[in-house]
Amino acid sequence: MITIVAKNIIKQGMTKKFKAAVKPLIEASQKEGGCISYNLYEDVSDPSVLTFIEQWEDQEAIDRHNNSAHFTQIVPTLSAFRTESEVRLYKII
Amino acid sequence: MITIVAKNIIKQGMTKKFKAAVKPLIEASQKEGGCISYNLYEDVSDPSVLTFIEQWEDQEAIDRHNNSAHFTQIVPTLSAFRTESEVRLYKII
Repeated sequence: MITIVAKNIIKQGMTKKFKAAVKPLIEASQKEGGCISYNLYEDVSDPSVLTFIEQWEDQEAIDRHNNSAHFTQIVPTLSAFRTESEVRLYKII
Repeated sequence: MITIVAKNIIKQGMTKKFKAAVKPLIEASQKEGGCISYNLYEDVSDPSVLTFIEQWEDQEAIDRHNNSAHFTQIVPTLSAFRTESEVRLYKII
């Protein structure tokens, strides 16, 4: 299993637009083969921090996800909404 | 449910010591009331990045955790092993 933590710092006034843009990405990703979980989280003390926490069966599932239509169409549009992003892939130890 | 992502950037040569120090913290935390999951993850491309991902039923469970003997005895010792840490509490959206 590989866990992805993808943090986004959203530009002021852009959180609603970001959430709307990623809604179909979340829905389609959750249905993918090899996706264990895929959800968006909001920092309880700073609503401008929106972070995906994703669990995937293996790297092959992530590769398919990264090449899916919903990923390649939606993810490139997200940079307009954020000032910063950090994506890390983790293995449990 | 509240999800905590607590990232630690470990000093060079200190990852084994950090992992040994947090082993009893992980074991005791997983047994706590209100703990849904509590695990340590390693960045697959940078083993100096060690991140806890924790799921708790509510803030009261986190408050009890923060006041537990294992937390108050172990967590203050961890700053010696790391150069940086970032703790964020998240709600799912």
